[in-house]
Amino acid sequence: MKSKSVRIVGAGLIGTSIGLALKAAGASVQFLDVDSKAQLLANDLVKSGNFENPDLIIIATPPSAFKSAIEREASLNPQAILMDIGSVKTKPILEVSTIEGLLSRFCGTHPMAGREVSGAVSARADLFLDRAWVITPTEETSGAAQEMAMNVIKACGAQVVQMSAKEHDQRVALISHLPQAVSSLLAAQLSGSNPESLALAGAGLRDTVRIAGSDPKLWGEILAANEEALMPLLISLQSDLSELISATSGPAKWESLVAAGRVGKSAIPGKHGGKSREYSYLPIVIDDRPGQLGSLFNACAKAEVNIEDLALEHSPGQLTAVITLAIAPEDIERLSEFLTKDGWNVHSIN
Amino acid sequence: MKSKSVRIVGAGLIGTSIGLALKAAGASVQFLDVDSKAQLLANDLVKSGNFENPDLIIIATPPSAFKSAIEREASLNPQAILMDIGSVKTKPILEVSTIEGLLSRFCGTHPMAGREVSGAVSARADLFLDRAWVITPTEETSGAAQEMAMNVIKACGAQVVQMSAKEHDQRVALISHLPQAVSSLLAAQLSGSNPESLALAGAGLRDTVRIAGSDPKLWGEILAANEEALMPLLISLQSDLSELISATSGPAKWESLVAAGRVGKSAIPGKHGGKSREYSYLPIVIDDRPGQLGSLFNACAKAEVNIEDLALEHSPGQLTAVITLAIAPEDIERLSEFLTKDGWNVHSIN
Repeated sequence: MKSKSVRIVGAGLIGTSIGLALKAAGASVQFLDVDSKAQLLANDLVKSGNFENPDLIIIATPPSAFKSAIEREASLNPQAILMDIGSVKTKPILEVSTIEGLLSRFCGTHPMAGREVSGAVSARADLFLDRAWVITPTEETSGAAQEMAMNVIKACGAQVVQMSAKEHDQRVALISHLPQAVSSLLAAQLSGSNPESLALAGAGLRDTVRIAGSDPKLWGEILAANEEALMPLLISLQSDLSELISATSGPAKWESLVAAGRVGKSAIPGKHGGKSREYSYLPIVIDDRPGQLGSLFNACAKAEVNIEDLALEHSPGQLTAVITLAIAPEDIERLSEFLTKDGWNVHSIN
Repeated sequence: MKSKSVRIVGAGLIGTSIGLALKAAGASVQFLDVDSKAQLLANDLVKSGNFENPDLIIIATPPSAFKSAIEREASLNPQAILMDIGSVKTKPILEVSTIEGLLSRFCGTHPMAGREVSGAVSARADLFLDRAWVITPTEETSGAAQEMAMNVIKACGAQVVQMSAKEHDQRVALISHLPQAVSSLLAAQLSGSNPESLALAGAGLRDTVRIAGSDPKLWGEILAANEEALMPLLISLQSDLSELISATSGPAKWESLVAAGRVGKSAIPGKHGGKSREYSYLPIVIDDRPGQLGSLFNACAKAEVNIEDLALEHSPGQLTAVITLAIAPEDIERLSEFLTKDGWNVHSIN
């Protein structure tokens, strides 16, 4: 993005984070926001540039402000390319199509990243690192507009994923809007309960209601904009819940509930955007002293086994730790034997 | 717990974590488990002791194995004090009350801590640090039994919270069993969907369905044991969901859903009733080839910095990976400088 000038309309979490990343990639960046404090903070944060006639305008407003913002910017800057970052894609494209000649220089996009906190103050340049970033160009989108959007995405360290606006909206209904609705419904059940009860809450509850902390106005607009795709999912959930409630008492019904959830959860790929892969796991008990991890990994390298992932369980003051190595299934026996011969305390999970 | 001998029946996550903490507090610890591999790993991990006639027996089995385990241990060890760690408290006390003379030397307890992963392999001595740990002594519980339970809790670094078994069961229905049921219901909706859709999933979905990874058999038993308290909560959720589905379309209904969730979420006290473990995090981009992790940990050992925890973000086919080291805050600058000089690609989070 070297030597490009970028105006970002909307100095919220996403807009400001993009600004930070583009600035780091060599672009000149400036912010506009109806909230003058947010505008000031964002411009300060990225050390904004003074320019007119930006090459690119990124609309990063809430959905309800999108149409008026893009209408104004498009007419003031007839040469500029425009993109958005909204969570729903069918509706903004429909709005853009009502503005004469705009479809060709507009590319709809949606970065699959966010935080439950909001505002420029929570912005981070690495918010999009290795995340998927959807682009939904239409047949009318020019090559230049699409290329500019892809350059922004690459400059943010994210991965371009292309699909139609409709496809996108159906997917996010399932992976983003349904979880938001469910988390909010669950959290709402906590209202009015004894604060002493809630003081016992552990990580399970806290994680499950984390996104219930989202901004009601913004998320009200997002969910409403994607109602058509979201409603069937809520109705399916309602049907499962009713079935659960009316099923015969006893462990079997609850076990099949948790089992069904586990199957669903395991359908989520292990990492951002990559296929999930079957690893085998090898737990090894090590003493807690400096150098142990290094020696262990040196031994793995000697065995010529690649470590795909790992987890370390160890707490301050504990004399031993379990390190669990995730490796390709075909390597597990060989590595297990090699490490055992090398004197390591190798256990087997199964 | 110095000079106390403790037998733990059930070498799962909770039992093994208690064993690690009690061992560190000076107790002799040994494990029994129907799964001989789990028993071996747990005994290895805590460097178990050889003794008979334990002072204390902790029943840390799944609910369905509780009765037979405590019956056997109580009759084999007529002098020992016994406690449990089950997630539901009314039912085990009922079971204990059917065994002649056992109520006085039994104290029911429930540590408010857990993980979505299970087994001795995931155990950590600090699992209970600063967490609430409920005890539910009855009128028949002896002073000695209650004191022993409280000493275990203190040795694990947790905080004693006393209440009746019934009160406990109602509270956990709201803060633990309802979230489990909801997370499982949500995750079940993902089954059968296009894997490409799910590849876009971000932290929101992942957090919301994290506990849906729980063990179906264990959680089937837990939820069934607390059905009486859980069912009214599910029915209330069902009613809210039906209301949401039938409300008039448009942003207002979604905004009030998210707003209600936000109010409920804010009712949860900020911390787990105690200090949280403060680590600092250092992300390092490494090449994906054998030996890299070993060299990195060797460098950390050379810098004499202890790695408290770590996470590896890396997807198949990706040429680089981000490894994030969790270390004591006072070490972060020194390690960052050391590794940078050593040629590592160290990033800063802020």
